[in-house]
Amino acid sequence: MKITAKDIWLDVKKIRETSPLIHNITNYVVMNGTANALLAIGASPVMAHAVEEVEEMTGIARALVINIGTLSESWVKAMFCAVRRAGDLGIPVILDPVGAGATSYRTKTCHDLIDAVSPAIIRGNASEIMALVSEEAKTKGVDSSDPSSAALDAAKHLSRNAGSTVCISGEIDYIVDGESVITIENGHPMMGKVTGMGCAATALCGAFAAVNSSFPTAAAGAMAVMGIAGEIAAESSEGPGSLQVGFLDALFQLSEDDLTNRIRTGE
Amino acid sequence: MKITAKDIWLDVKKIRETSPLIHNITNYVVMNGTANALLAIGASPVMAHAVEEVEEMTGIARALVINIGTLSESWVKAMFCAVRRAGDLGIPVILDPVGAGATSYRTKTCHDLIDAVSPAIIRGNASEIMALVSEEAKTKGVDSSDPSSAALDAAKHLSRNAGSTVCISGEIDYIVDGESVITIENGHPMMGKVTGMGCAATALCGAFAAVNSSFPTAAAGAMAVMGIAGEIAAESSEGPGSLQVGFLDALFQLSEDDLTNRIRTGE
Amino acid sequence: MKITAKDIWLDVKKIRETSPLIHNITNYVVMNGTANALLAIGASPVMAHAVEEVEEMTGIARALVINIGTLSESWVKAMFCAVRRAGDLGIPVILDPVGAGATSYRTKTCHDLIDAVSPAIIRGNASEIMALVSEEAKTKGVDSSDPSSAALDAAKHLSRNAGSTVCISGEIDYIVDGESVITIENGHPMMGKVTGMGCAATALCGAFAAVNSSFPTAAAGAMAVMGIAGEIAAESSEGPGSLQVGFLDALFQLSEDDLTNRIRTGE
Repeated sequence: MKITAKDIWLDVKKIRETSPLIHNITNYVVMNGTANALLAIGASPVMAHAVEEVEEMTGIARALVINIGTLSESWVKAMFCAVRRAGDLGIPVILDPVGAGATSYRTKTCHDLIDAVSPAIIRGNASEIMALVSEEAKTKGVDSSDPSSAALDAAKHLSRNAGSTVCISGEIDYIVDGESVITIENGHPMMGKVTGMGCAATALCGAFAAVNSSFPTAAAGAMAVMGIAGEIAAESSEGPGSLQVGFLDALFQLSEDDLTNRIRTGE
Repeated sequence: MKITAKDIWLDVKKIRETSPLIHNITNYVVMNGTANALLAIGASPVMAHAVEEVEEMTGIARALVINIGTLSESWVKAMFCAVRRAGDLGIPVILDPVGAGATSYRTKTCHDLIDAVSPAIIRGNASEIMALVSEEAKTKGVDSSDPSSAALDAAKHLSRNAGSTVCISGEIDYIVDGESVITIENGHPMMGKVTGMGCAATALCGAFAAVNSSFPTAAAGAMAVMGIAGEIAAESSEGPGSLQVGFLDALFQLSEDDLTNRIRTGE
Repeated sequence: MKITAKDIWLDVKKIRETSPLIHNITNYVVMNGTANALLAIGASPVMAHAVEEVEEMTGIARALVINIGTLSESWVKAMFCAVRRAGDLGIPVILDPVGAGATSYRTKTCHDLIDAVSPAIIRGNASEIMALVSEEAKTKGVDSSDPSSAALDAAKHLSRNAGSTVCISGEIDYIVDGESVITIENGHPMMGKVTGMGCAATALCGAFAAVNSSFPTAAAGAMAVMGIAGEIAAESSEGPGSLQVGFLDALFQLSEDDLTNRIRTGE
C-alpha cells in the first residue's frame, strides 16, 4: 500500500472545508490538547461522557474517538453505549489503548471494546499493541531478533482479528491493514517529552476517518500530519513547552508544500 | 446602555486589588485555561465539584461560575447544591450553557438550573442561547431575515424570563438586559481555533460580577477584555498555539491605554 | 541540614537516566501541566484513579503523588487504596493538601490520608500546612509576630506527628524534617500567576523521592529545580502564558551550571 502527499492534502482540505464533528471520550490529561489539535487541523471537537447523552452526541458526530487513559466504571459504561451507537450508525470508531498491559483493567476494557465494535483504527505504541495480542500470537514475533518485527506481527494479528486498521506509532509509524503496511518516518524525538502527543494522533485519525472511508489512508494521513507538524515545531523550539505551542501553530498553518517536501513514507 | 473604557478599567483595577475568589464548576477540557485566565486578570480561581464541599466553597466565594461542558450525574447534583447556596447568600451565578441544543440532557440541565436560581449572567454563542428559548419564542425572530436578529430576540426573551443579563458572543458580542443592548466588537477570528475561549469569557464574567453588581456592565467588561487581549495576542501569533500563550500574557499586562485605544462598543 | 547544587545535580541525572514511573492521583486542573513537568525533568508520569486499577498501578511505580485539588468520593476511595498499597510496598507517598482549610472535606481527607500512611513528603503553602495542625499547635506559633515563624512551627509539628518531611513553599521554601530546616530562595513572583505550579512542585518531589531516599534532600532538590526553572523562564517571559512555556523548556534543558550558578539555599 502506498500513500502520497496529494492523498493527504485532499483529506486535510476536506477536514478544513467540512469541519467534521469528532466525539471524544478521552482521558483528563489530554482533553485540552486533543481539542486544540482537532481545532488546529480544522475539525470540530466535542467531549461528552455521561451515559445520559453519549448516544445522542455520537449520533450527530462523524467519528468517535475512545481513549482509555483515565478509566473509571462510569466512563467505561459510557464508552460501551457510545461504541454500540456508532456501530449501529456506521460511524467510525477510533481506539487508543493507553496503558494497555500496565493494568489488567485497561487490557480487559480494550478487549471488551474491540469485541463490542470493530474499530476503524486502533492506534497505540508498540507495547500497547502487543498487550492486546495473546501470548501465543506474540511468540511468533519473538522468532525474530528484531523487536519491531514482533510488534509488526502483533499488529497484523490484531488487524485480522479485530477487523481494524492498526497503527503502531514510534520513531517509524506502521499502519497495518491485514498484511499491508504503510510506514511514515516523520516526527521528532522531543514529541515524546510532551504529554498527549499520541492521544492527539489518535484524535486526528478520527478527523481523517471522518472524511476518508479508507481507514489505512486516513491513519497514514493523520500520522504524517502529526509528524510533519512536530518536525516544523521542533525546528524553532527550545524544549517541550515551546514544541507544544509550535505544534498547534504548524498544524494550523500546514500547507500542501509542507506535506510534499517533508513526507517520508514507504511500504 | 453604554459602557466606557474608564468603567471597565475601574473594574479591572478592583479585580487586581481584591483578588476575588471565583468558584468554578466547569468542564474538564478548559479547567486549566479557565484558572489561568482568572489568575491573569487578577482573580483567585478555585475548582470544586464534590457535593461534600461545594456549598462550603461557594460560601467563601465572590462569584460562582457554572459551565455544563462535560456533565455527569454527580456533577449536576453538585451544581444544584452550589447554585442554591449562591442564591441564598446573594452570590452572583454565571451560567455557560456549553452545547445546549446538542443533546437534550444539556438543554434540560440548563433549564433546571435557571429555574433553581436566576443567573446574574448567562453567556453562550448564538445557537446555545437560541436552544434555551422555546420554539414559539424563536419563531418571532425568524420573521427577520437576519439570523443575528433571531438570536438577539432569543436573548431578550431569555433575559426577561430568567431575570438575567444574557451575553451572546460571536464576531459581535451582544450583552442583553431586558430590552437594553451593549455591543462589543473586539476579538479576532483565530480565537475560535483555541478551545475554551468562550469558557474563559464566562469565567471572566464571574470576576467582573464579583466586583460590579451591575451585571450588564460586568459582562460587557469581561467581553471587552477578552476581545482586546485576543486582538493583542493575534498581532504576534503564528497560530492558535501562540495565540493561547499571548492571550494570557496580554490579559496579565492589560493597561488602561489598551482599553481606551482599542475598545469598539455600541448600543 | 544543607544541600548543594552537586547533590541535586546527581538526582537530576538519576531521574533522566532511569525515568522513574510516577503514579499521580491528582486534580483535573493541573493534570496536563503535571505530566509535562514530570516528562520535562526526565520522569515517566502515569495518571490512574479507578479503584479497579490503582493498586496495580502503584505497584509498578517508584513514587505515588496524591493531590486533593478536586476531590470526590470515588477519588478519595482510590487514594486510600493507592496509599495503603504504597505503604505495604515501601513506595514513597507525596501528599499535596490543596485547599486544606478551605473546606472541612479537604482538611479531613488530608488527616485521614496521613493516618493511613506516613507520607514521605507533604508539600503545601503556609495556610495549607497550618490547616493540618491543631489550633493548640498553631497557638505556639502565634506567640511570634512573624507569620512565617508560625508556619514554620506548624511544619515542625506536622513533620514530627506525621513522620514526614514537610515542605512549605512560598517566596522562601522551607523544607522541614523534625527540627532540621533547609531553605530554598529561588523562584519568581510570576509563578504564582500560573495555575498548578505548586502541584508541579509536588510531582517533582515524587520524581526526586523515587531516586533519593533522603526525603529532605529530595524535596529540597525538587523545590530548587522548580524555582530555578521558573527564574530562567521569567527572564524571557512577557506574562504567565509565556512563563508556563518557558518553564517546561528550562526544566528540560536544566544543566549543572544552572544549578551551581543560581541556587540560593540555607539552613
